[in-house]
Amino acid sequence: MTTRHVWRLAQRPVGDIADGDLVYGAEALPPLADGQFLLQVIYLSLDPTNRIWMSDQEQYMPPVEVGAPMRGGVCGRVIESRKAGVAVGDLYAGLGEWADHIVTTGLGLSSLPSIPGIPLATLFGTLGLVGPTAYFGLLDIGQPKPGETLVVSAAAGGVGQVVGQIGKIKGCRVIGIAGGQAKCDYVVNELGFDACIDYKSQDVGAELDRLAPDGVDINFEQVGGPIMVAVLERMKLFGRVPLCGMISQYNDVDGSEPPGFWTMMLMRRLTVRGFIVTDFLPRFPEAAQAMLGWIMAGQLKTRQDIRPGLEHAATVVKDLYSGGNFGKLLVEVSPPA
Amino acid sequence: MTTRHVWRLAQRPVGDIADGDLVYGAEALPPLADGQFLLQVIYLSLDPTNRIWMSDQEQYMPPVEVGAPMRGGVCGRVIESRKAGVAVGDLYAGLGEWADHIVTTGLGLSSLPSIPGIPLATLFGTLGLVGPTAYFGLLDIGQPKPGETLVVSAAAGGVGQVVGQIGKIKGCRVIGIAGGQAKCDYVVNELGFDACIDYKSQDVGAELDRLAPDGVDINFEQVGGPIMVAVLERMKLFGRVPLCGMISQYNDVDGSEPPGFWTMMLMRRLTVRGFIVTDFLPRFPEAAQAMLGWIMAGQLKTRQDIRPGLEHAATVVKDLYSGGNFGKLLVEVSPPA
Repeated sequence: MTTRHVWRLAQRPVGDIADGDLVYGAEALPPLADGQFLLQVIYLSLDPTNRIWMSDQEQYMPPVEVGAPMRGGVCGRVIESRKAGVAVGDLYAGLGEWADHIVTTGLGLSSLPSIPGIPLATLFGTLGLVGPTAYFGLLDIGQPKPGETLVVSAAAGGVGQVVGQIGKIKGCRVIGIAGGQAKCDYVVNELGFDACIDYKSQDVGAELDRLAPDGVDINFEQVGGPIMVAVLERMKLFGRVPLCGMISQYNDVDGSEPPGFWTMMLMRRLTVRGFIVTDFLPRFPEAAQAMLGWIMAGQLKTRQDIRPGLEHAATVVKDLYSGGNFGKLLVEVSPPA
Repeated sequence: MTTRHVWRLAQRPVGDIADGDLVYGAEALPPLADGQFLLQVIYLSLDPTNRIWMSDQEQYMPPVEVGAPMRGGVCGRVIESRKAGVAVGDLYAGLGEWADHIVTTGLGLSSLPSIPGIPLATLFGTLGLVGPTAYFGLLDIGQPKPGETLVVSAAAGGVGQVVGQIGKIKGCRVIGIAGGQAKCDYVVNELGFDACIDYKSQDVGAELDRLAPDGVDINFEQVGGPIMVAVLERMKLFGRVPLCGMISQYNDVDGSEPPGFWTMMLMRRLTVRGFIVTDFLPRFPEAAQAMLGWIMAGQLKTRQDIRPGLEHAATVVKDLYSGGNFGKLLVEVSPPA
C-alpha cells in the first residue's frame, strides 16, 4: 500500500458547497512509524456539522485548515500495524479523514467491537455518534415524561429517528417533522411516531395547532429557520429545547437566524440548552448499553442511507442540506466484510 | 374602619406608566364575613414585574383587569379577624393589593414570623420574594462553582444585591452592572462584589473585556436590551443564563428584544432558563433558612429603599424602570411598629 485517496478542503465554501471547494486525489502514503497503524476505511459518516467544520465561523472544535484533509467520522479495519496492542483485522471508529486509508497513532479513534446480529453500518452509523446525540440530548436535556408532547425536526434523519423512538419508549406523544410523504410514512408506520408533518407540503404551524393543540413540551431542535420558529411559538410552560443543530442555516451567507424569544422564554419558563455529543463522551457506554438493549428488544430501529464510493463524498454530503438523505448518511469506502 | 385607600388600574399603560393609568381613591370597606380578616398594610413591595401585570402581554399569571385594584406584594398586620386561627396582631405577607387595608380570606398570604434583630423591611422586602428569586435563580439555574465569573445586572437592586453576595459565598468572581457611581461603590465596598460596571458612564462590553478577559460563566439576567447583548456575546463554553427579567423592555411599545443567539448557544453549549420565583414555592423554607444563616453570619447584607406614603406609589414605581431606586423598593403604607 503506497498511495491513498483523500478529499482535501481547497477553499472554504461560500453558501452551498460548490465544485472545487473540496478536491479529490491520490497521494503517497508514508511508511508506518513505530506506534502507528494503517486503517482501511470502511464507512465515512457524513453529518450536518461537516459544513461547519469547512467554515471558519465560531464552532466547537478548530475548523479544518484550508489545504488539509477533510475531517470526518470513520470506521475501518486495521491492515498494517506497528502499534502494540493493535492487530491486523481490528475494527476502529472515531474522528478521521475523508480518505480510503489513514495512517494514525489511534488518536481520536476507539476500538469498535463486533456485535453478532448488528450490521457494522448500524453499529457505527447509528450507535457511534448519532445514537448518543439522540440519547443524551433527549434524556438529559429534554427530560421527557410520560404523556408529554415531543416534536422532532429532521425526523427521518440519523438523529431524528432515534430521538422519536426513545421518546416513544419514554411514553411521549411524538410528532415528527420531515420533508416528503415517504419520510413521514416511514417514521409513523415503521418507527411508531404518533404523527409527522411534511414541511414541504404542509403548514407546520397549522399542523402543530391541530396535532398538539395544548402545545409542545420538548422541541428537539435540529433545523433552525422558520420550522424552529413555528415550534418555539407553541412551547408549553416549562418546555425544554435541546438545541442540537440548525442545519437550515449552515449554508447561510448572511448568518441570519431566528429572532430572540427571550420574553417568551421568561414567561413560559423555557429551558434552552445547546449541546454537542462529545460533551457526553465519558457517558457513551451508558448510551450504547441502553440502545443495544432497545435494538435487541425490537424497540429501536434505524435506517442508514449508504452511498458507495469515496469519490462521490463531496456530492453526497450536499444531500444533508437539501433533505436528500433518508436515514443516517454513510459513504461505503470499502466493503464491510 | 369603614373606608380604605386603593390604587386601581384605570387603563393599560402604553409605554411608560403615565398619569391616569392608575387612579388612587378612597372607597368603602365591606364588613368582614366569616372566614375573613382585615389586614392593615405596612409595606407594599414595588417590583419590575408590576409593569407586566398592568399589560395584557403574554405573562405568567393573569393580568390585572382594567378597573381592578392593582396587584402587589404586601405585608401587614391583622387588625380585625373573623377567621379561626388568625389573631389581631398577627403578621401576614404575600400577594395583595396596592391598598392600605385589605379584606381577605388569607388566599395568597402566609404568616410572617418575627425574627429578633431583623427589621420587618428586611424580612419582607428581601427574604420574602427577592431573596428566593436570587437564591433559586443563581443556585439552581446558575450552578456557580468556585472561581467562575458571575455577572449580575441591576446589581444594586433588590435581587441583584443578593445574587452577587451569594455568588461571593459560593466562591465566584462577581461583576455587577449598575447605573451610577454610588450604586457601583455600594456593591463593591459594602457588599464585596469584585467589580462593578457603571452602564451610564462606561462601555459595558469594553469593561467586561477588561474585567473578564476569559468571558462569563453565569449571566444573571435582569435587564435585557443592549446590556444583555454585551454580556451574552462574552459567555464562556457551558455558560448559564438564569433569565430572571428584562426590565429595560417592559415599557417598550414595539416589543423589540435582543436578537436570537441560537448559533452561539449551540456552539458554546449555553443553558438559558427562564424562571419565576413562585415556581420554587415548595422550596421557599430552604432559601429562608440559608439566607437567615448568612445574614446572622454577616455574609449577606441587604438594602431597602423605603418611600413613605401609599398615595405616591404610582410615581415611585416608575423609578424601577429608570434606575431611580437603590435597593429593594418598598412603600411604607403604615408604620412598622
